[in-house]
Amino acid sequence: MRLKNDLLIRAAKGELTERTPVWLMRQAGRILPEYRNVRSKLSGFKELVKTPELAAEVTMQPVNLLGVDAAIIFSDILVIPEAMGLSYEMVEKKGPYFPKTIKSKADIKSLHKVEDGELNYVYEAIRLVKRELNGSAPLIGFAGAPWTILCYMIEGGGSKTFSNARKFLIQEPKLAHTVLNMITESTIKYLHQQVLAGADLIQIFDSWAGILPLNQYRKFSMSYIEKISKSIANAPVTVFAKGAYFALKEMNNLSCNTIGLDWNMDINESRTLLKSKTLQGNLDPSILYGDQKYIKMETKKMLKQFKGHPHIANLGHGVYPDTNPDHVKIFIETVKAFSA
Amino acid sequence: MRLKNDLLIRAAKGELTERTPVWLMRQAGRILPEYRNVRSKLSGFKELVKTPELAAEVTMQPVNLLGVDAAIIFSDILVIPEAMGLSYEMVEKKGPYFPKTIKSKADIKSLHKVEDGELNYVYEAIRLVKRELNGSAPLIGFAGAPWTILCYMIEGGGSKTFSNARKFLIQEPKLAHTVLNMITESTIKYLHQQVLAGADLIQIFDSWAGILPLNQYRKFSMSYIEKISKSIANAPVTVFAKGAYFALKEMNNLSCNTIGLDWNMDINESRTLLKSKTLQGNLDPSILYGDQKYIKMETKKMLKQFKGHPHIANLGHGVYPDTNPDHVKIFIETVKAFSA
Repeated sequence: MRLKNDLLIRAAKGELTERTPVWLMRQAGRILPEYRNVRSKLSGFKELVKTPELAAEVTMQPVNLLGVDAAIIFSDILVIPEAMGLSYEMVEKKGPYFPKTIKSKADIKSLHKVEDGELNYVYEAIRLVKRELNGSAPLIGFAGAPWTILCYMIEGGGSKTFSNARKFLIQEPKLAHTVLNMITESTIKYLHQQVLAGADLIQIFDSWAGILPLNQYRKFSMSYIEKISKSIANAPVTVFAKGAYFALKEMNNLSCNTIGLDWNMDINESRTLLKSKTLQGNLDPSILYGDQKYIKMETKKMLKQFKGHPHIANLGHGVYPDTNPDHVKIFIETVKAFSA
Repeated sequence: MRLKNDLLIRAAKGELTERTPVWLMRQAGRILPEYRNVRSKLSGFKELVKTPELAAEVTMQPVNLLGVDAAIIFSDILVIPEAMGLSYEMVEKKGPYFPKTIKSKADIKSLHKVEDGELNYVYEAIRLVKRELNGSAPLIGFAGAPWTILCYMIEGGGSKTFSNARKFLIQEPKLAHTVLNMITESTIKYLHQQVLAGADLIQIFDSWAGILPLNQYRKFSMSYIEKISKSIANAPVTVFAKGAYFALKEMNNLSCNTIGLDWNMDINESRTLLKSKTLQGNLDPSILYGDQKYIKMETKKMLKQFKGHPHIANLGHGVYPDTNPDHVKIFIETVKAFSA
């Protein structure tokens, strides 16, 4: 299936496109009443993730309702630890919770690598979306970076300090690498299957990148991201490492096409540090709380700063849940009109 | 009262001291069994904060038990919003919780500036500690930066995204400045009283600095920190803005003596950007989870990087609650021996 709108893919490959492609992290979900409508009929978040028809439906919503230049498959980065043997619950308004966590070598023995045949519900959802899209926009597949997944497996949820995960790296570095390798191999298999099912681009989310110092980030995160990036030959790869400003310079050497910037990362500096990468981002998501004039002004300001560098417009983090969808549209339309 | 150990004060004033002074953020509290013993007899955290004799007792513990070069008064940054009219609860293992938060102009009308006569329990605790210290070490007083306090007043506690506080800045910038001004004036009064009571140095904690982009950080945080710093004439001032790597360059212009670095801030770069400031920090707190050899090695590595620049040794964040006090001692003793 040839893509009729391949702006995202061309920009990811380093092309200065005729206009800037635009999509939003977390676009499939919570901000749309149409999403909440689908969601309200279900037992919970996980039912939605595991029902391909419904996951496909909510994946399509932002394409049809907001006019973004890409779909991103509705799923969760935590399907990987779950498939490895650590089940999670999604607690309403609180986030994910793992009843069992990793504390010692014994806990690791019960884990297994993800095999073919697992996570088929994700691949099925991808196939359904591809059929539905019919080439009108590319579909983004994704996974969590191994370090971020490890954090959840150790902490059992979010954390203020991630001190348990940080302690694990210091006290059990070998075990940490064992689990990180298992996650990495599972993720590679998972992403290959996503590409086979039809994903046109892969994004790796390293949500907790910012809590490690550079030397640990290299060893415990970037090296695994590199393994994954290198293994994906048939689709461009984007890496979004939130808060990892200290690693941007070295990220220029990753085998990926695009680096996502959060809203605190300086665009000019990033252009210099990441000369060989397409850049994605990085409007502050709180700007969408402003009025039309403000959103337009700030969006234009951002676009100007990226001008002349391969760019995929996005927010600098996931769209906040209580953002007005009309404001998201203003952002999208401004990118389309102003970057042309 | 002349200080017998004034290393901290001289280092803060820019002196290259005969050895590096050392203390730890969060040293008064949770890591010491002696603290937990005092705490276990009380109804809660706030009883400890509001009972000068007990606050003084736990303030003295790390000086006597760990050998740090400074005491820091046991208290909480949230005594300011409480005195302004928003009471908080400290929920065990969860953190602070404000039953009432700020949402609109009406909520602000019920707030008032902190007046003389309020927060006397803090000043009384300071006087008791000063008597107890008898000049053996300086005493640090502190307050939260107005932006961090505003975050708590709006969010009602910690948050993953602080999207309510961020929305408030965008949608109600005037109201935000009104409250920030009230917090600032209250904090100035509060810190002046702390210095009058005997505090030898003042630290301002901007825990949520890292969630703002630079232009907002300037307007909504740094300008208020500057007002406070400028107003304190009789004690050196330290500013610790966690995550504000993007503002370090401009922080060189603040009217404070010392800038605290978190563990992700590059020491060499910070030395260049903050030429006219003493630097405080910045050992990664997770290093104290390591063994004796590792802690010594990493502490020496840090000290070497600061060599030749006025320096106060500390961690790059508060000590993690489950840190072994013996490991803290190794850190402190290594600083003392190796920097001499």
